[in-house]
Amino acid sequence: MVTSSLVNTYPLASYTFGTKEPKMEKDTSVADRLARMKVNYMKEGMRTSVEGILLVQEHNHPHILLLQIGNTFCKLPGGRLKPGENEIEGLKRKLTSKLGATVPALVPDWQIGECVAVWWRPNFETIMYPYCPPHITKPKECKKLYLVHLSEREYFAVPKNLKLLAVPLFELYDNVQRYGPVISTIPQQLSRFQFNMITK
Amino acid sequence: MVTSSLVNTYPLASYTFGTKEPKMEKDTSVADRLARMKVNYMKEGMRTSVEGILLVQEHNHPHILLLQIGNTFCKLPGGRLKPGENEIEGLKRKLTSKLGATVPALVPDWQIGECVAVWWRPNFETIMYPYCPPHITKPKECKKLYLVHLSEREYFAVPKNLKLLAVPLFELYDNVQRYGPVISTIPQQLSRFQFNMITK
Repeated sequence: MVTSSLVNTYPLASYTFGTKEPKMEKDTSVADRLARMKVNYMKEGMRTSVEGILLVQEHNHPHILLLQIGNTFCKLPGGRLKPGENEIEGLKRKLTSKLGATVPALVPDWQIGECVAVWWRPNFETIMYPYCPPHITKPKECKKLYLVHLSEREYFAVPKNLKLLAVPLFELYDNVQRYGPVISTIPQQLSRFQFNMITK
Repeated sequence: MVTSSLVNTYPLASYTFGTKEPKMEKDTSVADRLARMKVNYMKEGMRTSVEGILLVQEHNHPHILLLQIGNTFCKLPGGRLKPGENEIEGLKRKLTSKLGATVPALVPDWQIGECVAVWWRPNFETIMYPYCPPHITKPKECKKLYLVHLSEREYFAVPKNLKLLAVPLFELYDNVQRYGPVISTIPQQLSRFQFNMITK
């Protein structure tokens, strides 16, 4: 694990993007998703999910890579850990599944950095909080966001049903309507880092 | 400086609170404040201010100590650094000025922890951002929030014109109307820490 308050960010143009087979969402509605979550909770207990914050720069401003599904919904690359799986290893597995090439030699050597945020789901509902609310003894999900340090060159393979967007911090900030509470407060969580913008 | 992802929080009841002479605000209006900021900027350049996040626990939930002025406005203890002053030393000076006893032996031995957020003021206006906006080459203020690790027992002397409140994270979260953008997103910034709630 890499921890440093100085984060190198490389130009978006220094990365290469290809496509791969679609990765369909497991659920077609929010209700389906919450029902599946409930079934899994009965079997495995609290869900732990991990997501990666991948940074690039354009015009000397940090941008975050988001996966867009359809025309509106955006999410960070990541997903649910297997029961007992290590968080860092699980995040690497999920990043490869979402963004890695199908040829193993081309998959990035993911450098996972600091945990920057933790969100809790107290009930089988969409609402999450950045703390476990008092009196909640059995939260249903814990979601952790990690910084991912990219190298100067990487190849990303994007599933054909998704779009990969580089969204500037100033677009995310204070935009809960468009990006939801988790993604829209990433600028605040990254504010303590110093970005070393590499321009060449 | 103390950095750890595990933070001990002691019960509010384990601290003692007294009063001291009033510490009046230097400005009586927002317009006055921005005008004074402009004058200082001409003399000293960008203002750097530092504020402390002091945590206690009640009912096993973290609370933050806020100074209330009048009936509505709340702020973190802290203030402006002198030109060239070290951030950690300056924050200790400001915490003593705002919350320390007038008897030096009773002043807490402030343990300053990690910087958890940085906010930028691009213009002589009230709005701040958790990044320096692109194309802003001369920001007017940089405000840094630091975690302050309290010992099990402390004595705080609160200026008579202020009230010291312990506000739970669940009250701050998503409450920009009441606490403003800086204080209302402290729960998200603290979410990555694990709180060791000490109850005795």
